[in-house]
Parts: sequence; C-alpha cells; structure tokens
Amino acid sequence: MAPVTTPGEEMHALVERMYPLCRSITGDGVRATLDIVGEYVPLQVREVPTGTQVLDWTVPQEWNIRDAYIADASGRRVVDFAASSLHVLGYSLPVARTMPLSELRAHLHTLPDHPSWVPYRTSYYEPRWGFCLAQETLDALPEGEYEVRIDSALTDGHLTYAEHVVPGRVPDEVLVSCHVCHPSLANDNLAGIAVATFLARELAGREPYYTYRFLYAPGTIGAITWLARNAERTGSVAHGLVLACAGDRGQLTYKRSRRGDAGIDRAMRHVLTASGRPHRITEFTPYGYDERQFCSPGFDLGVGSLSRTPYAGYPEYHTSADDLDFVTPEAMEDTLAVCREAFGVLERDRRYVNLSPYGEPQLGRRGLYDSLGGRSDAKQAQMAMLWVLSLSDGEHGLLDVAERSGLPFEAVAAAADALHGAGLIKA
Amino acid sequence: MAPVTTPGEEMHALVERMYPLCRSITGDGVRATLDIVGEYVPLQVREVPTGTQVLDWTVPQEWNIRDAYIADASGRRVVDFAASSLHVLGYSLPVARTMPLSELRAHLHTLPDHPSWVPYRTSYYEPRWGFCLAQETLDALPEGEYEVRIDSALTDGHLTYAEHVVPGRVPDEVLVSCHVCHPSLANDNLAGIAVATFLARELAGREPYYTYRFLYAPGTIGAITWLARNAERTGSVAHGLVLACAGDRGQLTYKRSRRGDAGIDRAMRHVLTASGRPHRITEFTPYGYDERQFCSPGFDLGVGSLSRTPYAGYPEYHTSADDLDFVTPEAMEDTLAVCREAFGVLERDRRYVNLSPYGEPQLGRRGLYDSLGGRSDAKQAQMAMLWVLSLSDGEHGLLDVAERSGLPFEAVAAAADALHGAGLIKA
Amino acid sequence: MAPVTTPGEEMHALVERMYPLCRSITGDGVRATLDIVGEYVPLQVREVPTGTQVLDWTVPQEWNIRDAYIADASGRRVVDFAASSLHVLGYSLPVARTMPLSELRAHLHTLPDHPSWVPYRTSYYEPRWGFCLAQETLDALPEGEYEVRIDSALTDGHLTYAEHVVPGRVPDEVLVSCHVCHPSLANDNLAGIAVATFLARELAGREPYYTYRFLYAPGTIGAITWLARNAERTGSVAHGLVLACAGDRGQLTYKRSRRGDAGIDRAMRHVLTASGRPHRITEFTPYGYDERQFCSPGFDLGVGSLSRTPYAGYPEYHTSADDLDFVTPEAMEDTLAVCREAFGVLERDRRYVNLSPYGEPQLGRRGLYDSLGGRSDAKQAQMAMLWVLSLSDGEHGLLDVAERSGLPFEAVAAAADALHGAGLIKA
Repeated sequence: MAPVTTPGEEMHALVERMYPLCRSITGDGVRATLDIVGEYVPLQVREVPTGTQVLDWTVPQEWNIRDAYIADASGRRVVDFAASSLHVLGYSLPVARTMPLSELRAHLHTLPDHPSWVPYRTSYYEPRWGFCLAQETLDALPEGEYEVRIDSALTDGHLTYAEHVVPGRVPDEVLVSCHVCHPSLANDNLAGIAVATFLARELAGREPYYTYRFLYAPGTIGAITWLARNAERTGSVAHGLVLACAGDRGQLTYKRSRRGDAGIDRAMRHVLTASGRPHRITEFTPYGYDERQFCSPGFDLGVGSLSRTPYAGYPEYHTSADDLDFVTPEAMEDTLAVCREAFGVLERDRRYVNLSPYGEPQLGRRGLYDSLGGRSDAKQAQMAMLWVLSLSDGEHGLLDVAERSGLPFEAVAAAADALHGAGLIKA
Repeated sequence: MAPVTTPGEEMHALVERMYPLCRSITGDGVRATLDIVGEYVPLQVREVPTGTQVLDWTVPQEWNIRDAYIADASGRRVVDFAASSLHVLGYSLPVARTMPLSELRAHLHTLPDHPSWVPYRTSYYEPRWGFCLAQETLDALPEGEYEVRIDSALTDGHLTYAEHVVPGRVPDEVLVSCHVCHPSLANDNLAGIAVATFLARELAGREPYYTYRFLYAPGTIGAITWLARNAERTGSVAHGLVLACAGDRGQLTYKRSRRGDAGIDRAMRHVLTASGRPHRITEFTPYGYDERQFCSPGFDLGVGSLSRTPYAGYPEYHTSADDLDFVTPEAMEDTLAVCREAFGVLERDRRYVNLSPYGEPQLGRRGLYDSLGGRSDAKQAQMAMLWVLSLSDGEHGLLDVAERSGLPFEAVAAAADALHGAGLIKA
Repeated sequence: MAPVTTPGEEMHALVERMYPLCRSITGDGVRATLDIVGEYVPLQVREVPTGTQVLDWTVPQEWNIRDAYIADASGRRVVDFAASSLHVLGYSLPVARTMPLSELRAHLHTLPDHPSWVPYRTSYYEPRWGFCLAQETLDALPEGEYEVRIDSALTDGHLTYAEHVVPGRVPDEVLVSCHVCHPSLANDNLAGIAVATFLARELAGREPYYTYRFLYAPGTIGAITWLARNAERTGSVAHGLVLACAGDRGQLTYKRSRRGDAGIDRAMRHVLTASGRPHRITEFTPYGYDERQFCSPGFDLGVGSLSRTPYAGYPEYHTSADDLDFVTPEAMEDTLAVCREAFGVLERDRRYVNLSPYGEPQLGRRGLYDSLGGRSDAKQAQMAMLWVLSLSDGEHGLLDVAERSGLPFEAVAAAADALHGAGLIKA
C-alpha cells in the first residue's frame, strides 16, 4: 500500500476514520470525533449541560445509542445500525417491541426515487422513533411480525463542542466554523471538518496577523450555544467562514455573508476570480449552515460560507450515497488552497497612506523603477507600485487596489512591501 | 342579450355610456361624465370659477357647445358634430358664416396618413375655430360655398373636477388620478376613468390602511387646480398613480415617478415582474399625463403612471380610431388587477423589528417549523419566515424582503403575520 | 502647391516644422519648439534652474547635443544624428572613442520585430550613452572598429516650460496640458501640441467663462515642476485635459480622471456618445501621460486624457514610424472638434433653480409652447424646456439634464437660455 503523502490524501484518511461514528447534536459520537480531530490540533472541548438556556433555545437532552435493528421472525437483522449509523432516525426514542410490518411502516423512511440509498433523518425536538433504509430493502420484506429494537437513551447530559485557537498579532479574530453533528455522511460534513483541521494545522506553524478560532460544533444548536456563551466576543470577529460540503467533485461555491460586501466576501471573490477556477458566488440566504446564526441580524457578522456543491444541491445530499467515494483528496486540497489564499489576502490587506502624495515620488532614485525610459511595456511590479501610490489615500486598502487595478493581490501586496521598505507609504 | 357579468364587461359598459359626450377641460360634458361616474361611487364635485389663479395658471372661460356642422350648398351636413364630438376643434369660438372651401381649408384638420380617421385637436389658450374630419371626407368635397356653423359659447363659468375619498386607518393618502377632458376617445381616457372607478368601488367595501383619494379632473389645468387648492395636503400623499390608456390590447407599461424609487415604483415593479405579465417599465419623463404636475420639482410626489400602450404610442392615439372597439373588457380587468395587487403590496408593506435577533428563534417549538429535520427541501413559507426574521432590523420593509429574497410579496406578508402572531416581530 | 487652408492642414504644417528638432526634458530643442508655438499664441516661458527641488524630484542638468554619429573605418557615418534625432539615446553622456562593434553593441538599441524602424530610448536619471538604430542597419555592419562620437553636454542650466493663459469671466481654470519632450515623433506628441495650440488660438477670440491655462512642459518632470510651483493654484483647476497621441487615424480614446466622474469625464462622455463617433472611454490608470501627476492623490484634480490610439497602443509608438505620415489633418481636426465641444459643454453647464416649481409654468402664454394642443409629437425644444424645469431643483446641472433626458446638450442649453430669458429659472 502506497504511503499517504499529499495533504489531500491525509484529509481523506481523516474523513475515513471519522466516517463510521454515529454523530448527532449531542452524545458520544461527537466526543469520539473530537478525540480524533484532537490528534491533529489541540482542542478545548466544552460541555454544556442539558437545560441550559442558549439564546432562544435550550440545550436538549443528550442522546446516545448502542445498538438498533429490525429483525425478522427468524432473528435475522434486516436493518442493522451496526452496518450504518444512518439506519436510525436521529434522536430516536428507545423501543423494544414486536409488531407487524404494517404497523412498523409508519416508522420507516426510504427514498423511493433512489431505491438503493438510505436517507438521513432526525427528530431532535419531537419525540419519535424510526428507521431509515433502502427502498429495495423495504420492498423485499415480507409481511409479518418483526422485532424492533432501538437501544438508545435520552438523558440529561451535555452538548459538546470544541475550539482551537491560533493566536495572532492582533486580538481581532477570524472564525472558521464547521458542523460535527452528521453521522456517516462524508461530504456533509466530514470533509469540512478535515479542511478546517488542516487549515488550523498550517496556521499553527506561523504567527498570523489575525487570531484564528476554529469551531467544531453541532449544527444550529451548537452555533447558538457558542454565540450565547461568546456574545461579547462576537465584536472581535473580523472575518468568518463556515465550511461545509467541502470535498465533492463539483466546482467551488462561495455564499456571501448577509452584509454582502464584508471582507471575506471581497477576499473570496478576488481569489476565486483571480485564480481562474470555475466557481459560483451566490447571495446570502438565511438558510443553509451556521452562517444562518452568525449572520442573524443581531450579530450580523461578516461570515460567509464555502462549499463545493452547495447545501442540498446534489442528489446524494443527506443519503448514504454521500460516502467515502463521494469526496476526493483533490477536491479537499483545492478547498483548502482557496481558504489559504483568501485568508492570505485578509492577512495582508491594509490601508496605507502615501507619504509623498503630491505628484509621483521618484521611484528611480530609490531603485524601484526601470531606469531606461521610453519603453512601451510597463511591468506588473511597477504598475502595482503606481496603483498602491495612487490609491493609498487612507480610504482604500490593498484589496481595493487589487480590485480596481485588476492586478493579482500578491503583486499589489509585494508592491506595498517595497514601497513601505522605501518609506514611501505608512500603514 | 347576455347579462353584463364580469367587471371587465361592466367597465366596458361604463365606457360606452361616457363615450358620446363632448368633454373638454371645462363645460357640461365634464359634468355629465361625472354624473355617470357618480352612479358608481359617490363624488364630491368641485366648481372653480373662471379667472381663479391656480399656481402659474388661470382657470379659463368655460366652453360649451350645442351644435356644429359644415353644410354644402344643398344644405346637407358634410361634417356634423352630432355624429362625433371629435369633429369640432376643442374650445372653438362660435362661427356662423358661409365661405368658399378654399377659405375654409385653413380651419380644417385631417390625418392624410390615415384618410378614414378623424383627428382630435384643441386650442385651449389661443382663440380659434376649426373642424376635424377624415381626409376622405375632405377629398370628396367639391369646391364651392359652404355653410359653417359652430354654436359654441366661451363664457365665464367654472372648471369642474371631482373627488372620491375612501377613508383609511391612517390619514396618509394614496392618490389615484385620471383625466376627464377628452371627448369621444375610449382608451384615452374613458378606460382610465372606468378602471379608477371600479378600483374605488372595490375599496369602498373594506377599511384600507391608507386613505384613498380618487381624482377625476381635466388634464393639466385640472391637476394644477387641484394642486393649487390642496398644496398643504400634498404632504400627506404617500403614493400615487395616474391612470391613462388603460384599456387597449397592448402590454402594461408602468412609468416611474420622478423620484424613480418611490414606493409605487417599487410596488409596481414587484407586481409586474412577479406576476410574469409581459410589461414595460419606463423612466420618468416630464411629459405625458398629469404625473407631469404631481412630479413637478416643487411637489415631487411619489406618483407614477400606469398605461397599457403608453402616451402617443399607438397610431389610433388622439383619433377617431380610439373607439369602443379599441378597448376590451379583458384589458381593463387586467389593468384593474395590477392596481389592486400593487396597492395590496403598499397596504401591507411594513417595517418590522425582529424581537429575537440573536441567532434564529426556535420556530419549531412555536409550531412554525417542520419538526422532521434532515429534509432537503425548504418550503416557501419557512423561507419567507427566515427572510423576514433576517431582514427585520428596522431598516427593511416587507417589500425589501420580497425583492431581496425573490419570494412573492404575499408569501412574505403571510410569514410576517405568522411571526407577528407568535410575538417574534413587532411593527 | 495648394494653399494651406483647413485648420487640420495648418496643424499638420505646425507639426512638420517642429518635427526635426531634438527635444528632450531640457535643452534648446524644447526652447526652439516653444519659439515656434509662440508664433501662434503668446507664451510665458519659464526657466527653472538645475538642482531646484520640485516635489519629490530635483530639476536635472540640462542636456544639449550638437552632433552624434557612428562612423566606420572609412569615415562613413553609418548612424547619424543629423538624419534623425531619434538616433541618440536621450540624455546620452558625451563620448568620443573608437571601439570594436563587439563592444559597441552594448550601447545599441534596435527593434528586432520591426527591423526598419528606429526605436526611441532615453536614460534621464542613469548616466549612460547609446545609439538607436534600425535592426537592418545593425545587421549590415561588418565587425571591426568604429568611431563613436556624441557631442553632447550635461551642464547646470534650466528646465524650460511655457504657459498660455486665456482669461475667462471666472478665475476657475481649465488646464490643458501637453508634453514637449519627445524628439522626432509626430503623434507622440507634436499632434498634441498642435491641437492644444489651435484650441488656444480659437479661445483667444472669445471671452470664455473659465480661464484657460495651456501648459507646454516636458513629461513627468515638467508637470511635477509646474505642480511644485503652482501648488496653491491647483485649487482653482476646475477641469483639465492632457492631450497626447492626438493625430493618428485611430478612433478617439478618452481616459477618465482618477475621480472617474469629474466634470471633464462627464462632458467627454456626453460629447463622444452624443456625436455618434466611434470611441472608447477607459478607466483611470496611474500610468500614461501627465494625468499621472495631476491625478496623484495629493492633488486628485479632475483631469482626464484625450488621445486617439492611446499610450503604447500602436506598434509605431516610440519608433521612427511615428512620423509625419502617421498623423493626418483630419484626425487632428477631429480631436480639436471634440475638445471644443466638451469645453463648450463645461462652459455652459450650470445649475439653475426653477422659479415656478409647483406644477408646470404655463409656457404657452410666454410664447414658449405650441398653442395647438392634442398633437402627439413633442418637439425636442419643448421636451428640453420641460426637462430643464423638471430637474432645476438646485441639485442638477444642464449636463445632468442632458444625460437623464437623452437630449443633446445643445438643445438643453438652448432651452435653459429661453427659460432664463422668460424669467422662469435663475442661475
């Protein structure tokens, strides 16, 4: 077997390890997942007791499950939780009964249009029990009595989430969030967890400008719990990104924040456009992943969302077909690269002030300009310097310069470094 | 004969009744027209004396006409006012002479390009007399002496207009205006009068939010007279619409107010776009109907104009071909429907404030959300609720929500009602 | 020989006279050029001593050249400054040596892609010497010893520029600038000098509204010198235009000021669009001609740039192929016409206030309106009056009116004159 070598392959290996665990919005599946992530980056794990009031919500009881199955008269398990965590309706109440198939049907969920796939269903806030199975499996079941057993427990316990913080030179934060509540679904959201984790690992080696906070929390209730406990901290969130569906073969999709022109919106647009990648940029909608919470009008944070094929945009979404083959090392590596580039833009985006704003400063005597005049080609580096000088009036940052000039941000940032080194601009 | 059943047919019947009357900017033709309208909705008829100063204008003398004709040597009436009110130049001075055709020609108006049509011409502010006739008629006249008689009178009298007010829950007004000064022209503007009248009748049965003022006045001088006498009231005009050319078979045309983004402009755009009707939206110009006066820079009211084929945009415009066949019940009913829908939007457009703006409120426990999670389809009603919550920050109204979300206004308004009922938003 | 008759032909004759002179950023070539221009319009010539600090720059030594050549062993001049001023690298140090071709090559500049053309090269701020020649010429040179002589002098002296001022009714200025530092290049920039000069001559006969300042200065250092010496005056520059590449056969190109919506930007757009000329309008870049200096962020003047084929946009740019045949009388006359029209717009662009803003004033009784109503065609003059009345609210000028109405500026200005004459608007 070939050694795991590329970051993409490493991320895929991480996804594979997390895949079998039965995650939900609470419970030991989340804890086991965070244990694995913790092998890559140190995590601060938070446990919030059942019943805690969090904004408009209440932390629910903790759900755990040991086993679940439907067995036929011969004792054969025709649906078995051990084979896939998707087979049980999330937050199912315990049940141990024998009943005819006719009665059992009301508790069975299938996808008639995709008869070989198992759907993913939950009932967090309505007490229910149920099984999810392939339509083919159901069709093959003869009428008759079945043993139905769900060995689950809903008990007072905790909601679990984790944070990993990379300290920066300023306390202003970049928030990177991913949800950790979905069971055996690879793209939604094990790929997002993997990309976030590798991004965190990359940053650990440097001293970034911003402080980076990685949040691994169950969807909706987890983000709400974090917001409730960190309301005062949200004022420090300069930029944010929700990572989800980060590993499928589709093109990248960036969904803007509610503000629409937040820093992350502009950085992502620049990176996606300048890189020439096929991509889509979509407007904010108050649906999707936890950008819903971060962008709620009381917080209105500059948090966008990066996916490949977005929320509910592929047939395999929320089915057993969102499996390990559905996500690829290359796709995750590409998502990671775009995050790296966009945060690289935000890290270096500054407003400078031209200290020699009356006429052009003489770049030539500072060694910043080609000395042989009369040539018809202006080099990109020189154009970038002229643009930075032109727009460094205290009102435009380097990303503004890149956008107005059409030059790559890297060239603009390098020009600013050169000008700063020559004492021609100040931050 | 089949009974008149649809509103469109009723409006067409109203147009037929008004059609033969000889209207002008003053005189008994206007009064007779208002008498007919008064059978449908109660009118307050205003009489303003000749010589009254109104803004930059003066109310002119009143013009009335009993008879007019051109008769040949045999006494046969070759042009006869009794056949069509269009045959006399509006505001013609009285005349009773015999003259050769060669001399008469200077007083005759025809349409050489449409030889069978009679043009509509007036000379309100320049003392003249004249006849309008088909080119064919003129061509058939032998040279020779003709008896020319216009039994008209220009006397001190009054300018007549009328108002119908539907009281609302607030004193802020919606102004609906139509001109009543054109003689036997069906689309311009008997159809507009009919649509305004049926709109008024519909509203009478309800208690609308806004107070609605319907204005039936002669073009230009009538609007100017109303503005002169109601200058202080114009501050209460929240929205307004001029109705003209409301009954032809062409697609709807909405002309924006001078402001360009007044409430009526946005409501009309939403309704016309969301309904899928073919339509045009045109920018304001200081020409056309009485939006010229309402949008003059001193008033600058949020008044747009709704037509089907617009001002001067069809060959039949201001000719005898703008007759009863040129307007249809279906077209008038469609115009009426768009008015009803647009005012419906304005009636319900409110700014709400989300009372639970930090994170999403838990809609599920309030019965506002589907309890079975994990489904990939978000229903329109739920999306509408999320959008209302997201944008109810005190700066956006429901029409803003509809426009940004792309949802129908009705769905948004219904969502707001549900959220308001649950105490999640306040007005 | 036919007499010189058209302004275009006169401008071409002026270009021909200036063409042979060896201009640079300083020296007698500039003075001789200004002497010629001074025959057309009176000039105030300024001499600024070497070493003077001008903004971030220092006025360089003055460069003059009497002769230069490369001669072969037989004494034949294979490259001769007398044949073209382009043959010497601008600001070449003096040299008088004999050297083998192999050593000489490092000092020779050619255009391999255009083997018959001589390039234009300079080295103002780096001490060098060199020759420019056709690749063909170089290819034909046998190896061997060559006599190399440049009889130039770099001495303390002056930088020379000139101004011509046409006094206006207000002290606010229109700045028209052209560079005078390029040697035998016709389009870049003798055509620009010619157009500026003829524009100045036209204005002299009138008393314009604005004061016009024509600046003839060497590129970059000349503009910087003028700005350094007139920093307090820049506050009076209402509008400005840099003229360059004004005579080739390409379509007109207007490059916006850094502001992007300065008066000159809007006037040029209106004139170019309304005239139906093929043209391009490009965004500001901090490269090109002296708009770089005028638009530097400390000054940020409303100065655009008018060219035909723009900066470095044609293969002949900065080569001997930019010769007298490359520019045409017709092209220069067309450039002149657009300048005349654009400044004509700025001259007449005013904000008026409608003195009768409540409803329309009655134009008819003032003789401003067609008295025979009911006609379906609105004449342009009447529409222009209605538009001026509608937008004369103190916030819109006549150019705004022209742009919003789609009417030609001339019609709008004429309407304003008529309304002003009737006392209906005031400036």
